[in-house]
Amino acid sequence: MTQQQRTELDGLLRHGPLDVGGDVAEQRVIFHDMISAVPLPSDVSTVEAELGGVPVVLVDTPGTDPSRAVLYLHGGAYALGSAADSVGLANDVSRRVGARVISVDYRLAPEHPFPAALDDALAVYRALLEQGTSSESIAVVGESAGGGLAITLLAALRAHDLPQPCCAAVFSPWVDLTVSGTSATTKADLDPALTPEALRTRARDYLGHNDVDTPLASPINADLTGLPPLLIQVGSHEILLDDAIRLAARAADRNVEVDLQVWPEVPHVFQGFAALLDDADRALNAVADFMERHRFAPAPPTRRS
Amino acid sequence: MTQQQRTELDGLLRHGPLDVGGDVAEQRVIFHDMISAVPLPSDVSTVEAELGGVPVVLVDTPGTDPSRAVLYLHGGAYALGSAADSVGLANDVSRRVGARVISVDYRLAPEHPFPAALDDALAVYRALLEQGTSSESIAVVGESAGGGLAITLLAALRAHDLPQPCCAAVFSPWVDLTVSGTSATTKADLDPALTPEALRTRARDYLGHNDVDTPLASPINADLTGLPPLLIQVGSHEILLDDAIRLAARAADRNVEVDLQVWPEVPHVFQGFAALLDDADRALNAVADFMERHRFAPAPPTRRS
Repeated sequence: MTQQQRTELDGLLRHGPLDVGGDVAEQRVIFHDMISAVPLPSDVSTVEAELGGVPVVLVDTPGTDPSRAVLYLHGGAYALGSAADSVGLANDVSRRVGARVISVDYRLAPEHPFPAALDDALAVYRALLEQGTSSESIAVVGESAGGGLAITLLAALRAHDLPQPCCAAVFSPWVDLTVSGTSATTKADLDPALTPEALRTRARDYLGHNDVDTPLASPINADLTGLPPLLIQVGSHEILLDDAIRLAARAADRNVEVDLQVWPEVPHVFQGFAALLDDADRALNAVADFMERHRFAPAPPTRRS
Repeated sequence: MTQQQRTELDGLLRHGPLDVGGDVAEQRVIFHDMISAVPLPSDVSTVEAELGGVPVVLVDTPGTDPSRAVLYLHGGAYALGSAADSVGLANDVSRRVGARVISVDYRLAPEHPFPAALDDALAVYRALLEQGTSSESIAVVGESAGGGLAITLLAALRAHDLPQPCCAAVFSPWVDLTVSGTSATTKADLDPALTPEALRTRARDYLGHNDVDTPLASPINADLTGLPPLLIQVGSHEILLDDAIRLAARAADRNVEVDLQVWPEVPHVFQGFAALLDDADRALNAVADFMERHRFAPAPPTRRS
């Protein structure tokens, strides 16, 4: 069953209309339609709000404890996507870990290049602390570019002398804007969602006048000392497989507690397809396990087996 | 407390008498004394036996299910150690996963160079199957050189068209006999247990007339396609950190399900120090979780929190 599910998802993505490197205005609409195609469960509550001057979407599922917060950074190669688009995956995270998700509507490129997205994520984190949420009650989650942004946020917290969250989980993080990992070539034919060219186009949009090796834009170059425990999940059918592995290696070298999980033959941010794919469900349960182990979440109130 | 435990263990190892690269006869005695210094719990049963013509030690703890088997490969750089020496850690594994451990007394170098150890491991695996144990009821665990041997065994099973076990867990695996990982230099001062020179001495003993890149001696060079789900645990204070990371990368590239766990500031095969170190206890529980997830073990009967 699992293999059939993987094959079906691959076909769905391979023949879908999304072109991450295409015209931004068009692709934002396609991205929105694609990732909001599955209707939200009726028990999800979403509220638009503002934190630290940044728009956010608060996502709650039954029984979530609003005193703990998942700061959530959506994907979309820094140019596509939104907090609202990401509610499908964000509510699945909320449900598994039993906590409110605060999805950050960070500003997008090319209109707002680096470091706009980082400034927004940092402002929301600061606002959470100022509201009285303890850093131990915050977990950071990010997907794709949002995964890179999550790592960048953690490195920036250290530079700003702010406390680290309890832990962080990143899904298929994009941490090298040069797109020069081995898997950018070895997995190009197997990846149904992304191409190196598309990512390089979006990297140029995001970087503006900044160098591609800027540590807080390509956090593979950042000093990762002092980061909290880090869960990295990635599929083996991804051009970004090597980003995940190199991130694990760099963090490990700096004595960060790292859990790298590679899921075979699944694509970029496969966790977003829990409705179709048992692997996604298992991976999200592993996120809940990880956070529970790091004392973020008690046993979540609702959890599929 | 944890940080203090790590510092104490580091000092213990740093000032201990073991020299892995030293005279084999002397170091076998020192290795034995060191890793059997903590008395075994009184509820451990150990029986010497033979399987497939190879001596083994059967390790049981209360409530273990003898129909499931952990095939266990001890450490000692292919020249030191024995199945009996390893019972301290092997019984901790048995207890956590609720299964009998079959610790293989594979032949050691330099008396018996490559592929003697592999032949012995393979003979025990074959004998288990011939006895009627299903491959799904076997998990493979190895530490250090035994971790490399575990990966080699899995690659050899494929070459011999034998079924893979349900899963495998390796602790600080030594998979590159050239000892050329980055961490061989970057972590040399931090590693209280091993030096690149010591490992290279033992590699020469083990290789005999074989080339150092021989895939089944340095399994980082083997084709890892078809391996079962793999848990890799390593400390960040190890010259072998990079072996674990490169093994994860190679296996991931071949679509193996990989869970790489890097535990900060702990040494080589830190799981062997559960009496001193909370991290070791947590890591062994993570082994049980991993095996349970892969349907090897039901919830273990005895498990420390």
